[in-house]
Amino acid sequence: MMAEPVFPDAEFEARLHHLQAAMHRMQVDAALFTSEAEIRYFTGFRTQFWQSPTRPWFLIVPANGKPIAVIPEIGASLMRSTWIDDVLTWPSPRPDDDGISLLATTLANCSRVGLMMGPETGLRMPLTDYQALREQLRHSAFIDITAAVRSQRMIKSAAEIALIKRICEIASASFARARELFHVGQPLDEAFKAFKIELLQQGAEDVPYLVGGAGPGGYPDIISPPGEQTLQPGDVLMLDTGASFKGYFCDFDRNFAVTRSDQQSEKAYERLIAASDAALAAARPGVTCKSLHRVMADVLGTADDGVGRYGHGLGMQLTEPPSLAAFDETILTDGMVITLEPSVAVGEGRFMVHEENIVIRDGPAELLTRRAPAQLPLI
Amino acid sequence: MMAEPVFPDAEFEARLHHLQAAMHRMQVDAALFTSEAEIRYFTGFRTQFWQSPTRPWFLIVPANGKPIAVIPEIGASLMRSTWIDDVLTWPSPRPDDDGISLLATTLANCSRVGLMMGPETGLRMPLTDYQALREQLRHSAFIDITAAVRSQRMIKSAAEIALIKRICEIASASFARARELFHVGQPLDEAFKAFKIELLQQGAEDVPYLVGGAGPGGYPDIISPPGEQTLQPGDVLMLDTGASFKGYFCDFDRNFAVTRSDQQSEKAYERLIAASDAALAAARPGVTCKSLHRVMADVLGTADDGVGRYGHGLGMQLTEPPSLAAFDETILTDGMVITLEPSVAVGEGRFMVHEENIVIRDGPAELLTRRAPAQLPLI
Repeated sequence: MMAEPVFPDAEFEARLHHLQAAMHRMQVDAALFTSEAEIRYFTGFRTQFWQSPTRPWFLIVPANGKPIAVIPEIGASLMRSTWIDDVLTWPSPRPDDDGISLLATTLANCSRVGLMMGPETGLRMPLTDYQALREQLRHSAFIDITAAVRSQRMIKSAAEIALIKRICEIASASFARARELFHVGQPLDEAFKAFKIELLQQGAEDVPYLVGGAGPGGYPDIISPPGEQTLQPGDVLMLDTGASFKGYFCDFDRNFAVTRSDQQSEKAYERLIAASDAALAAARPGVTCKSLHRVMADVLGTADDGVGRYGHGLGMQLTEPPSLAAFDETILTDGMVITLEPSVAVGEGRFMVHEENIVIRDGPAELLTRRAPAQLPLI
Repeated sequence: MMAEPVFPDAEFEARLHHLQAAMHRMQVDAALFTSEAEIRYFTGFRTQFWQSPTRPWFLIVPANGKPIAVIPEIGASLMRSTWIDDVLTWPSPRPDDDGISLLATTLANCSRVGLMMGPETGLRMPLTDYQALREQLRHSAFIDITAAVRSQRMIKSAAEIALIKRICEIASASFARARELFHVGQPLDEAFKAFKIELLQQGAEDVPYLVGGAGPGGYPDIISPPGEQTLQPGDVLMLDTGASFKGYFCDFDRNFAVTRSDQQSEKAYERLIAASDAALAAARPGVTCKSLHRVMADVLGTADDGVGRYGHGLGMQLTEPPSLAAFDETILTDGMVITLEPSVAVGEGRFMVHEENIVIRDGPAELLTRRAPAQLPLI
């Protein structure tokens, strides 16, 4: 009674061949992965067990042939239900050798090992174990393959886009019920809980991310958990959700004025909508992320506001490369899924932010979220 | 409108002094943390924004004085709402220097820097950035402080235990409604969703972990997401939840026989209950984790079954040290919160697992979960 695979084997074969082509160009003999997203991307291995930090998990992608999973015995049955044939296990946790000798044996003949070491990555294994592995493979060079993997993962397949579209639609339908879900006098944490339950009832698999805020004329912060303060007339309420469906995320927000709105919030909202409309119109293959950032900054007429960027990629993770930021030269390409996320400061220590999710198409971009109203909606 | 602090400042002062005492013994000038749990433990900084892998976050604990947060500007407002005074920020993401020069400047006079590098840890920053930091601090030694931090975090304060007890009670109350929530013909994923909504309605803040399975005479796997297969008479249904309240977890499961049970499942269930009862009776200060593992293995009469251990610590994370395993010499101490999690193989490729959460007290241990029935319950 395990979950059905999310994708057919052909999807994973295509991902494998894409990576192996890059590995051949870089003369990498094997790529080593330690992180949830990449292991799931190349195998289909999907479990919330990653919540447990106890055990490391490894995937080796050789230059030729299928990936080899090197994982704790507890995951063997689930990994064997994926398209992977080669599943090597050890009885983890085993602190004095938590997979390291098995990994070193499997990589023994690789003179160049690829590893993600660059921006937006981490090392999901103990550093002492990593150093022990390097020592055991002391004649191998370790090569950073971050750029190759990120440029591959940025372009979503039709099947991936369909899942992101589905969760965007689920969240859009949930936001459409805002008037029924939120009311004056409701504690903010209760409002968030009501929205989380609505997302699940509308078909979300999980709601790993739900943040936001409320306050007169904006909110002081956009990453906080909700407090117990009650919603008051004149508050601007914002909820930003990363709900998921079969392991793929939406990431967008909606703003609401509670019973009445003030002119400053209305104007700020309209600037945000104008900025995202301008970006939606400009987002075409061949345009850089940097210039899309410029398009929004020009409408907003502001410099940096502390968020650091006006959007980003999304898919298997809440945030993925690229960044809509002045430093990012990535060229938009058919199949990229990104968020448009302009934000503005409104008075002392208060913000407003607006976010939509789109897919870059050969022509105009396609909106995956139901378009937000042109004026700040009342609830 | 931010969430109220979960703990008074005195809680964080006590945590700080405990760590600094260990740092003095190890002659460590500053401890550097990169991970969600430790940064939250020493600051109270609580956000789901960790879902985004884009930005690194750092905390420096000096040998004397309060911790210093070195974080992306987007988190400044929330971090300043905690008990931390010193919040240094940079405009992240900034791939060519994502906090590294700021970190290096702040650590410049530290000849011995503590870092968690050991079992159950990871490095939540890019490896190339870590190497750049080491290069900038090339005259500093980096010391592994995993053992000190884990032994500190293993012992929970009264305030921490109260939160774990609360979420255990919420999940116990949710499991008590199993007959209303689960029924023959229900797709397994719908059963899981109903349970997740029940947990939220009973007061859980989030349900980051809900796994399990169902099948005749046991389940093939204990870490899978649910499939769409319907519950059938004679199935054994198991749900294992790591729900959370103010950032603290429960982690336990319950088994149910769907309308009827077979003798093999009943016997297996009774062995699991007997094993956890024996462990509950034996769990006292001074007993080792290794011997508690032995107590359960003796009742079960089996060796390893692939799970690797019969329980573990829990608290801010779903699984924490110690492990109830043959390798773990940790001595149980008043205030440790652990799971008792015996498991058995029942026939070809099928398992049953049972789990309770307890706190070690000066005397008999205290059960945090409502005790499971002595016989496999029918629904």
